[in-house]
Formats: sequence, structure tokens, C-alpha cells
Amino acid sequence: MIIDCHGHYTTAPQALWNWRKSQVSDPKNFSRKLVISDQEIRDSLEGAQLRLQRERGSDLTFFSPRAGSMEHHVGDAAVSAAWSRECNDLIHRVCSLYPENFAPVCQLPQSPGVRPENCIAELERCVTQMGFIGCNLNPDPSGGWWKEVPLTDRWWYPLYEKMVELDVPAMVHVSSSCNPAFHFTGAHYINADTTAFMQLIQGDLFKDFPTLRFVIPHGGGAVPYHWGRYRGLAQDMKKPLLKDHLLNNVYFDTCVYHQPGIDLLLKVIPVENILFASEMVGAVRGIDPETGQYYDDTKRYIENAAGLSAADKKKIFEGNVKRVYPRFKR
Amino acid sequence: MIIDCHGHYTTAPQALWNWRKSQVSDPKNFSRKLVISDQEIRDSLEGAQLRLQRERGSDLTFFSPRAGSMEHHVGDAAVSAAWSRECNDLIHRVCSLYPENFAPVCQLPQSPGVRPENCIAELERCVTQMGFIGCNLNPDPSGGWWKEVPLTDRWWYPLYEKMVELDVPAMVHVSSSCNPAFHFTGAHYINADTTAFMQLIQGDLFKDFPTLRFVIPHGGGAVPYHWGRYRGLAQDMKKPLLKDHLLNNVYFDTCVYHQPGIDLLLKVIPVENILFASEMVGAVRGIDPETGQYYDDTKRYIENAAGLSAADKKKIFEGNVKRVYPRFKR
Repeated sequence: MIIDCHGHYTTAPQALWNWRKSQVSDPKNFSRKLVISDQEIRDSLEGAQLRLQRERGSDLTFFSPRAGSMEHHVGDAAVSAAWSRECNDLIHRVCSLYPENFAPVCQLPQSPGVRPENCIAELERCVTQMGFIGCNLNPDPSGGWWKEVPLTDRWWYPLYEKMVELDVPAMVHVSSSCNPAFHFTGAHYINADTTAFMQLIQGDLFKDFPTLRFVIPHGGGAVPYHWGRYRGLAQDMKKPLLKDHLLNNVYFDTCVYHQPGIDLLLKVIPVENILFASEMVGAVRGIDPETGQYYDDTKRYIENAAGLSAADKKKIFEGNVKRVYPRFKR
Repeated sequence: MIIDCHGHYTTAPQALWNWRKSQVSDPKNFSRKLVISDQEIRDSLEGAQLRLQRERGSDLTFFSPRAGSMEHHVGDAAVSAAWSRECNDLIHRVCSLYPENFAPVCQLPQSPGVRPENCIAELERCVTQMGFIGCNLNPDPSGGWWKEVPLTDRWWYPLYEKMVELDVPAMVHVSSSCNPAFHFTGAHYINADTTAFMQLIQGDLFKDFPTLRFVIPHGGGAVPYHWGRYRGLAQDMKKPLLKDHLLNNVYFDTCVYHQPGIDLLLKVIPVENILFASEMVGAVRGIDPETGQYYDDTKRYIENAAGLSAADKKKIFEGNVKRVYPRFKR
């Protein structure tokens, strides 16, 4: 079985985006009901994620709302709560229509400067009432201005306590960038991955939460490429070896869109910490002229990786994912 | 000849840091003269950079003030100007004492929100009067809050015009981070490299400045690891191939502190665009227990890279550096 742990509903029907537009234009007087038919949902997926699953030969995708549209920085906590609820309900409908193809991961109703325990009710609703298996946690709900405390701060602890209780991991994933310095998928996403990992090095979060689990997407940002730097920085800070300090709790996905990048990831990060993912349909949609294949068809890179045993491939494609997301049951 | 294009005076005598402390504590009434003897300069280098050059077998380092201490965010433009002048004068003294070992690269007196042409006088002074061969350009003088426009904005053009006229490249290098989200050498530096490269992808800067040259330090941040992502994003934006869009003007240094990272860099980036560097004595000072060698002894990784010809090594160690910094003459 091949499980893609990182997919967003980037192709959601236009009605969702229209709903959002109305909501943010006049949140106080907003009461529009979101109307999307089952057929519209099917149409939005059949020619996109479902076709690509078939063509590429993956079985199931962990599916969450479009990351760039979480927009925790837009409006206040009430706006974020209403929007998250709609988005998560829609993901639930997708997964109910296609239980063989998708498993649900939720957006959290974060809002800049608002305490993370404010997200607990929605996380609980998604997990206990609708079978969600994980969540996306935004380390920068300001959208590119980076005003929140590091992920190791006690500010976040109530949410972590609930995640541990529910036994769900978080993918650490920012949303769009309002900062003109940061292109969202080309800089903000990758920077956030790098930043989050470095915050975890500096802290001792997993001493307090030995079973808390984070997935760092996009192949861990810059981290595997600079693995020597991170090992060295941890050493200079008198932290334990990274394998003991973080790798019982932190995982990297395989959203790295060329063979040499995947080869590096497989070389430096233990295979137990790598989860298959492609983020399709996502940041990069074209065909690589150097290979004739889609950039984001990451399954090929793993299959073509030299020296990776069948057992290791099975871990990356299935075993690790099931271990990190224990609520996932086909 | 082996030229390290990225070294900072991290070991400068305590008198320099004392001067700075006095300056920022009362900039209005400050008039202290910086007093450092030649012997103090020698003492600060003999046991550090000079010893490491000898031990590791490099010949000469392009030497600039400590990056983390540029602190463009501290005080106003006048404070930044006075501080930059002291730091650059000290670098000039180092290079006059050890002309066989160091060539000077200057700090620019940037200040948040202050027009970059404000840096021209100091750049001109350094280059034309003191033989400096390049400069460090900070894309985020706010120190981690990222309030400046992208590097492709016309805001920066007057400075670029002067760089072109003087035929000096800039290393794109941030300073320390005031933002608790970003560890300075573990997140802010690497993020800045990634961010700058993505800004260059989005723009068309080198159409306007075909001879402008930037060095992206720390192996280009996350860029080589995500080379497929960047090629794909440029393609989705209908930009030319990266080799045509950027690689006549953008170079990556080799400050990547493990063999697999250097191997990736050499694999995906054309050898003509790679400049040898170690940033010693810098961000990572320990010995890698996996190799028994210093993490930042990057010369070893290049020497040990499989399949790299002697001619290519010569390009990385010497030829490319001389081409990018034409004012350098031994």
C-alpha cells in the first residue's frame, strides 16, 4: 500500500472560495450557507488528485484543506473558527465519498496572538466525531511576519496535551505569505520548515512530550542539505545527538522535486523518519524537461533511489506513515 | 591556489566590541576612539584563522566584518555608518598586515527603511581608497522582521549601479536575528539565502544589470536541495531556465558542513557557479564525531567528492572566485 501523507484540497469547488470571499468582506453580518453538491466534489477530484493517484500508482492521500488558504492572519479568531469548520467539514465529505482514496487531516482555527487552546474544540470535533487522523499546525499564523513564540514555548502546550491525548500528529505547515519578501511556496514554506526544526533543536520539547509527533513537510526545508550544520549547532549547544534529541518525534516528508534531493534525504535521514508524500496537486505542477515526468511525482524518485531495499521502501510508503498516524485505519 | 571567499572577523579584539557597546549605549555623545594595536590584531588571528589556513591548506580568505555584528537594525543610519567605518577600517588593517592571507570585503552602512544609495559613499571609500574587492549586502536590515522590499525592487538600483561601476560583487548575507522565531545561524541565515534566491527568480533583475553578481552563501540555503522545486516554480511562472535566468549572475559558496550536502551541491549546480568557502571561524566550531574532522573544514568535502576532476576543483578553489571578484589580485 502506498500512502501519500501530504495532500491539500487545492482543487476545491469555486463555491468554497466564493464563500470565503463573502465571509472576509463582511464577517459581522455573514451567515451564508456553503452549498456544494456531491457531484461538484467528485468533479473537483476525478480529473485531478484521483487521476494522479491512478496514473502514479499511489493508493491513498492524507487530505487537508488548502494550506495557502488557511489564512490564519485574516480576520479574528471567530472568522478563523468559522472558516476552519467549513474547510474541515468539506474534507470530511471528500473522505466519506472516497474512503478508499483519502483520509482526513484538519486545519486548526489559529489566529495571531490567540492562545492555541482555542483550537482544541475544533481538533476534538474533527478527531472524535469525524475520524480525522492528524492536523496542520501553523508556526506563523501572522502570515509571514513571524510574531508567534517558538514551537517549544509553553504557549503551545495545551494544544500539544490534546494532540497527545488524541494520539494525532501535526504537520508543521504555514499558510500564505503577506510579506512581499517571501514568495509563499518558494520561500515561506521552506523557511518555515527550516525554522521549526531549528526551534526544536534549541528547546527540549520532547522531554515534556515524549509521544508528541511532528511531520516537517517539503523534505524538511533546508535541514537535510545542512544536516552537518544542524548536528554541529546542536553539539555546540550541548544538546544530545539529533537522533536522540529529535528523531523519536520528528519526521520528514518526501516533497522534494528532483532525484538528487531525494537521494540526499535518504542518505542522511534515517529511513524510519521519512514519510512518503508528494503534495499533489500543489506548489509545482509542470513536467520536468530533464526527465519528462511531473516534478511532484515523488514516488518515482523513491523507486529509483539507488540502494534502497524493498523493506525500506515499504517503510517509507506505508509502515512509517501508519506508525506516525496511528488513527489511520483503512 | 585555494581561496576561501567567505570569512568574517569573528575573533576581532575585545576592544572592538567594547567600542560598539559604548556607541550603542549613548550614540549622541559618543566620540571614543577605537584603539587596537597591531599585536592585538595578530594575536586575534594567529591562533584562529591563520592557524586553520595552515592546518587545512587554504591560501587566502576574503575577509569581512563579523556578519552577526553588522546589526543594521541597531540605532539609526548615522550609528550604522560610524560602526561600518570602524569595522571596515579594521578589516583593512588586517589585510595590510597579512596581504598574503586576507583580501578585504566590506560591511555596508545599511539601516532599515533608509535608501540603499546611502551606502554608496562607504562602498566607494572601501573599494577605491582601500582596495576592497566586494561587499556584504543585507536583504533584511531589520534583523529578522523582513520589512525591506525584495532585492529585485528599484529601491536597490542605485547601489547596484555603483557595484557594477566598481565591478564588485555582493555576498547576500543577513546579520543577527532579533526575532525569537529565528535562530540566527540555524534559521535566519539559511532562510535569507533561500528567500533571496526566490526573489531573484520572481524578478528580472539581471536584464537591467547583466554584469551584477551575487554570491548566495551557506551553499545557497535550501536552494540546491530543492533545485527541482525552483526549476519547476520558475517554469510555472514562465521564466527562462534558471541557468539562463540567474546563473550568469548568481553563485553559491560551499559552506555546507557535511559530505552529502556538498555532493548534492556539486551534482545540481554547474561547477562554474560554485565558489569555495568555509566561513571559518564561524557558525559551527566543533568536530564531527562521524568523521573526526571539523564540520567547517569544507575543503575536505570538495577534495573527497567523487567524480570531480582536477580542473573542476581548480575552478571551485580559485578560477571562479577570481572571475566573480575581478578586483582581487594577489
